[in-house]
Parts: sequence; C-alpha cells; structure tokens
Amino acid sequence: MDSERDSQQAEQQPGPQAKEQAEQQPGRAPSRRSVIGWAGAGVALGAAVTGSVAAAVRSESKAVQLTDSTVDIPFYGDHQAGIATPVQDRLHFAAFDVTTTSRDALVRMLKEWTKAAAAMTGGREVGTGTAGALPEAPPDDTGEALGLPASRLTLTIGFGPTLFEKPGPDGQPVDRFGLAARRPEALVELPRFAGDSLDPARSGGDLCIQACADDPQVAVHAIRNLARIAMGTASIRWSQLGFGKTSSTTPEAQTPRNMMGFKDGTHNIAGTDTAALDRHVWVAPGEGPEWMTGGSYLVARRIRMHIETWDRSPLKDQEDTFGRTKAEGAPYGGQKERDTPDLAAMPAKSHVRLAHPDSNDGLMILRRGFSFTDGTDGLGRLDAGLFFLAYQRDTRKAFVPLQQRLASHDALNEYIQHVGSAHFACPPGIRKPGEWWGQALFG
Amino acid sequence: MDSERDSQQAEQQPGPQAKEQAEQQPGRAPSRRSVIGWAGAGVALGAAVTGSVAAAVRSESKAVQLTDSTVDIPFYGDHQAGIATPVQDRLHFAAFDVTTTSRDALVRMLKEWTKAAAAMTGGREVGTGTAGALPEAPPDDTGEALGLPASRLTLTIGFGPTLFEKPGPDGQPVDRFGLAARRPEALVELPRFAGDSLDPARSGGDLCIQACADDPQVAVHAIRNLARIAMGTASIRWSQLGFGKTSSTTPEAQTPRNMMGFKDGTHNIAGTDTAALDRHVWVAPGEGPEWMTGGSYLVARRIRMHIETWDRSPLKDQEDTFGRTKAEGAPYGGQKERDTPDLAAMPAKSHVRLAHPDSNDGLMILRRGFSFTDGTDGLGRLDAGLFFLAYQRDTRKAFVPLQQRLASHDALNEYIQHVGSAHFACPPGIRKPGEWWGQALFG
Repeated sequence: MDSERDSQQAEQQPGPQAKEQAEQQPGRAPSRRSVIGWAGAGVALGAAVTGSVAAAVRSESKAVQLTDSTVDIPFYGDHQAGIATPVQDRLHFAAFDVTTTSRDALVRMLKEWTKAAAAMTGGREVGTGTAGALPEAPPDDTGEALGLPASRLTLTIGFGPTLFEKPGPDGQPVDRFGLAARRPEALVELPRFAGDSLDPARSGGDLCIQACADDPQVAVHAIRNLARIAMGTASIRWSQLGFGKTSSTTPEAQTPRNMMGFKDGTHNIAGTDTAALDRHVWVAPGEGPEWMTGGSYLVARRIRMHIETWDRSPLKDQEDTFGRTKAEGAPYGGQKERDTPDLAAMPAKSHVRLAHPDSNDGLMILRRGFSFTDGTDGLGRLDAGLFFLAYQRDTRKAFVPLQQRLASHDALNEYIQHVGSAHFACPPGIRKPGEWWGQALFG
Repeated sequence: MDSERDSQQAEQQPGPQAKEQAEQQPGRAPSRRSVIGWAGAGVALGAAVTGSVAAAVRSESKAVQLTDSTVDIPFYGDHQAGIATPVQDRLHFAAFDVTTTSRDALVRMLKEWTKAAAAMTGGREVGTGTAGALPEAPPDDTGEALGLPASRLTLTIGFGPTLFEKPGPDGQPVDRFGLAARRPEALVELPRFAGDSLDPARSGGDLCIQACADDPQVAVHAIRNLARIAMGTASIRWSQLGFGKTSSTTPEAQTPRNMMGFKDGTHNIAGTDTAALDRHVWVAPGEGPEWMTGGSYLVARRIRMHIETWDRSPLKDQEDTFGRTKAEGAPYGGQKERDTPDLAAMPAKSHVRLAHPDSNDGLMILRRGFSFTDGTDGLGRLDAGLFFLAYQRDTRKAFVPLQQRLASHDALNEYIQHVGSAHFACPPGIRKPGEWWGQALFG
C-alpha cells in the first residue's frame, strides 16, 4: 500500500528542491502523503495545487499512453479522462438522484465536485484534508486514501435523461432545472430489449460518476467523498463495484478474461487511435447541442451471468457460444488471439460473429466493462457477471442496434440476463482550473 | 494482468531446463500460463504437481516472510496458510451449508477441495484445466484466472458449530455426520453482544473458506471453483468480498486505513512472532480434541459503519473515539503511529484504550479484517464497513470477553453495528500431498 511515487520522485530529483520540482513534472502531483508533511511545515496548499494543475494540462496529450500506476492521469483536457484512458484495474460506479429542486444548489454541487475531482485524481485530499482540519469541524476529506497514491484514478461524469425531463405526478414531463431544451436527441430512453429483466433500483439515475483506479480503496474513497459533498443535493441511487476489468483499450496489453473464463474484449477501440475515437466515440461539432461536442454517450448494463449453468456446459459449447477458443482466445479460423476471425467459420449465433464490426457495417463501441461479484443470491448462486460500460458517439446508431441484434440472436443469452441499465451524456473535458462539470450545459 | 513470474524465472534460469528447474525452487510453482504450454506439449501434469509440492513443503518455514506477490505461499505446513501469512490485498470469504446427509459425500468433497486448493494456491488450474478439457465435457477449471499468477493466494478452511450438531425439526441437536463427540468445547455458539443486529442470512455456516490474494480475480476464482466442486454436497450460504485489508501482520509495512480513515490495526500479532502466535493463536496439544492441535479459531463479523454519521463528526470527536490522531495515526500520548500509547491520556471509552492488551490482561487476537463496500442501501447510504476476521487460540478467552467489553463501552458503537457473525474451528495445516482437509476430524 506504499506510495511508490515519492521514492521515484526522490530518485529522479534528489536534493531539497525535489518535491517542488516534482510538481512541475507533467502528470505528477504531490501525493497525499507529501501533503501531510507540507501542511505540517506550513506550506500553502493553494500554490502547490495550481502548479501541478498547469503541469497536468500540458501533459494531457500523453494521457492515453499512461499505464504506469505511479503516474497520475491528468484531469484537464479536451475529453474527459476515464474513456480513452488505458483501463484501470478496479471500478466504483455510482448513479445519483438529484434530490433538490434548486438549480443553484445543483450548480454549487457540480462546482464543488469538480474541485474535489481535480484534487483526488491528482492524489490530493479534498479541501484542506485531514491535516488541515480544525478539531471542532469534520475534516473535508474522509481520510481512508491518505498515504495512497492516486493510482491512476479517473472520475468521469455523465448526465442522465431524467436530469433534463422527468415525469411528474400527472405523468407529464417536467423540466426540472430548465435544461429540457438542451437535452441531446441522442440521449434517448433506451428501448426494451428482448430478455431484459431490469431492476429499477439498479437502473437509471440523473447523474453518474465512473471512478476507475488501480487501487479499489482509491476509487471507493472518491465516490464516497463526492456523495458526501452531494448531501442534501443528490444521493446515490445505486452503485457498483467492479473487481477486474474485462476490456482493454491498450492493444499491446494482455486481454483480461471475463467471469466465463473467456477473453471477450480483444477487438476494442485503442485509446491511442485518435481516428477511431473521432469516428466512434467523440461527439463531433454540430451533431447535437454544442455542450456535448467532444463528449460521449455512456451505456451501463449490469449483466448477470448464470455461471453455474455455464460451468456445466461442455467446452465445445462454450467455445461455439463465443466463436473463440477458451485457452488461447483465438477466434475460429485463427490460431492466436489477435488473428483475423473467419466469421463464416463460426456458428451463426456466436457472440463474436454477431458483435463483430464486419457483421454490423463497421460499427464499433468503446468497451470498458468490469467483472463483479456481489455475494450470493437467495439460492446459493454467486451474484456475478459483467458490469458492461460502453462509450459511443451516438447511442441510437451504436449500442441500440447492436444490442437489438444480440438480444434477439446471441447464443450467449442462454447464460446471461441484463438486470440493470442506464444511459448518460458525458460532456467533453474541462480544460482548465476554474471551469466546472456541466458549465456549458448550465451556463 | 501479466504474470511476472514467468519472466522472472526465465531470467534466473535461462536455458531449456528453466521450467523444470523452476519447479524445484522453494515457493515457486508452474503458473497457469506455463501449464497451458506443457499440456499442449504432452507433459504429464501429475509429475509437475508433485515436484512443486515437495518444494513447497521444504520452504514452509519461510512462508511468513513472503510478501512478494510473484512468489506463491506454500499450501503445505504445520499450520494453515492465510492466518500468520502476511495479509494479502483482497479477500473473498464464503460460508457454506452442507446440503447432503451423506458423510461419504462430504468426505469426497473435502478430498476434492484439498486437491483443488493445492493446485490453485500454486497458480495452477483445477484438474486438467482448460487446455486439458475434452470438447464434450465441461473443463475442470472455470478459466477466469488462466494467465494470472497465484498472487499469493491462500485458502483457509474452517468448520462451524452446526457441522457437528444442528437443531433438528424438534429443536433437539442432531449429530449429522457422527462428529458431535469431536466438537471442540471452544467452538461455542457466540453469545449475543449488546447492540448486535445480526442477519441470519449473513451469519453462521457449516464450513468456511477464506480466500486471500493480491488479485481479487484470483480469490473470486478460487471460491467459485470450490463452490462448483461442492455442487450437490454443499452450497454457499453467504459470501463477502473485501477490497482493502485493514490489518497487517507485517510490522514493517505501512498500516492500512479503515473506512473511517483511521489506522486501526497497528498493534497486531506479527506473523513472524512465533512466541506470540503460540501464545495467542495456535491451539496447543491437549487443549481440546487432538484434531485441532496447531489449528486456530476464527471469528468473522460483518461490521456495518454508519459512515455518513461518522463523516459529519468533528475531527476531535473522531480522534477521541479511537484515542489516536487521524493524520499520523499516533496513539494519544505518542507522536508516531508505533509509539507506546498512554492509555490514561485517552478518553475512558476510546477504542484503543478499551481494546489494548494492557486493558485486557495481555489478551491479543490476530486480526485480518478487510474493508467492504456492497453498493447502497435503500436510503442512499453506502453499505460499507469492516469485515472483521480474527484468529485466536480459544475464542472463549479472547474474542468473547473482549467483545463483551467493547460492545458495552466502546465509543465506536455510536458509528458501527455488527450485522453478521460466524465462528469456525480451523484445523492445523496439511503436511503433505495425499492428506486432506478434515482428515484428522473425520478419520
């Protein structure tokens, strides 16, 4: 649990000025541990924060190359971090209901969230932190990430359809915060798909925060502190921990296996492929309201796997279901995981064949899913599966047609069930300190 | 997610004999990834397993020094691994109900569990694994840990009171498997403590498996595969994931913080302190039935934290509650975390003062708890807290009196509630291949 960053900085920058210089390094910020020492020594935190923020802005273009857990992912940039960013090891995702009717209160919360997110993704505590708290007041930060590095934490915000319009008591849509006219057409209510068995308590939400980090304690800490700031303004509607990533946006890395024991994220959009990101992920100018240009649409689906049934299936049935070998992960017609698949060699209902871009007019979505295990259901079966997260330029032209096809035909459906669903519009990135999440939407 | 072990072995042992020699290195076993290659090359797995097992036995005495995530924790030894072993980063804990009435079926399952546990803790797949499966049969292993190192996985088994005697329909105790006479007196039904609010669905169990590993996917995989082997004989009653350890058994390591932001596991029994382990943790000869000599008693408590209330408490109240500073973790009367506490300087009801050995006639228990976050409750509050795990030589003289004291007086009680509880007798270790979990109990 030790911060490796401090020692690394010390190696690179020996001498008494090491810490000060480290602030100026792109993507490096003072860790929570250093901050304790500084506060004790009476150094003004404000100056330190501003310095590292400027450095972070300069290094934004390098963000997608950062897989080193000791280097922070910059918070500022043209796009929000946590989308094209190399997928971190752990997830805490939270959907919020806005509980206030006051637009001003909501804006105040978003401004506070932004400041806190910039601090936490830089490995710093919220506000004045633990060491800076007065004895008679609760500390600004809950403290459980103190001493831990930022662990590549990213925090990504999204706005749900119900933030713009929500049915009132009479069933008519209510423009809660004067945002109805700014709702993107692409932010549709998702249609019902064949086989859906959605739990309203695990679906929807006015806002979402996706927290990804290599250390789960850092991701959990971030959601908790944002929920704490939200108190009285918004509250968590549902949340989901993911313990292992199932997709990769770094083609050179080993593809992780899902809870079915298969590699299923091989053919994903690379976080470094700017052409593919522009084509499939980022909203282009003029495609909707201006506040969404450079943003992306996020679909979250909680997919329960009937793993006990799956585990009783013969190997060949499992491989036919995916259209891939299990041990190597090679698509049918290939020898190695990344060999070009021979779609015609796969069963017509196999998952790879149905989901492949060549079967869908080149359609691609950026997947960022995580495996989950949430204890046991009442029948002694593990409540486990895939928390599917996918980003796209227009959900109506990406997830919706793809899932309509899969829901009707995919051989996998025998072993899975979609039990939660949500849709969010994730705005573009924040370019500099002082801007705030949702500024272009509310401004 | 890459196995670093393979490359490390290759560096140390270049040449074509590298893999074979690696088997002979203490604490090193062929990883799942190597096994794929071997099976493909037609090498008999049985021989490989035996070789590494012998090596593991020889290195058992070094087990408590192993914190390197690329080195396996030996499965064989005088004591079960996962107790004095340096605490790993992640946990999956499962309590099982035995569903069969057949003693033979139960013994068969325990034998199969033992074989699978020896394989998985050595970084190998269960049975013939994925590559060795026949197309027309389900693979022996579910496959999601394929390619991952063992990640210091330990699997620790325990036997609950209800395995020995369980009330029948008429309320009278039934000797289900002819074990009633072998029930240790120390394996009591835990008394009800003040403030307990126990959920039967998260309490008890005939058997338990504690899976600890540095990679959660490895821990989850292990529990799942044992549950799969148990099908028809035992089923999971409840399970708990822990995302961050809160205690350390390695005094030199940084003490992790719990969900209250405090360091609470500072004064723990060190895994290397054999005198303290003999005095507080391991059951001595003649202290109970012989099958428990060298074993230990495990108490598991799911402790929900009212973190929203805690987060609103002033820093001084928080520090007074523990008797420790928050930022540094120093006990009152000390400057640094490991300074000797001045108990008299702490509030009378502070947690450290009440739980300290000096307040309890030198009583110590080995704590091995983990933080958990299981989504949100119906009121938008995080369902988060501490999954407390503690090992001791005699629960009647350790956890029970300590918890009676804490439950009545601890200032922490304002912020926590015990919502799950279980008690297990964990037998000593298995010394060599061919022995099985529970052999001395059933034999």
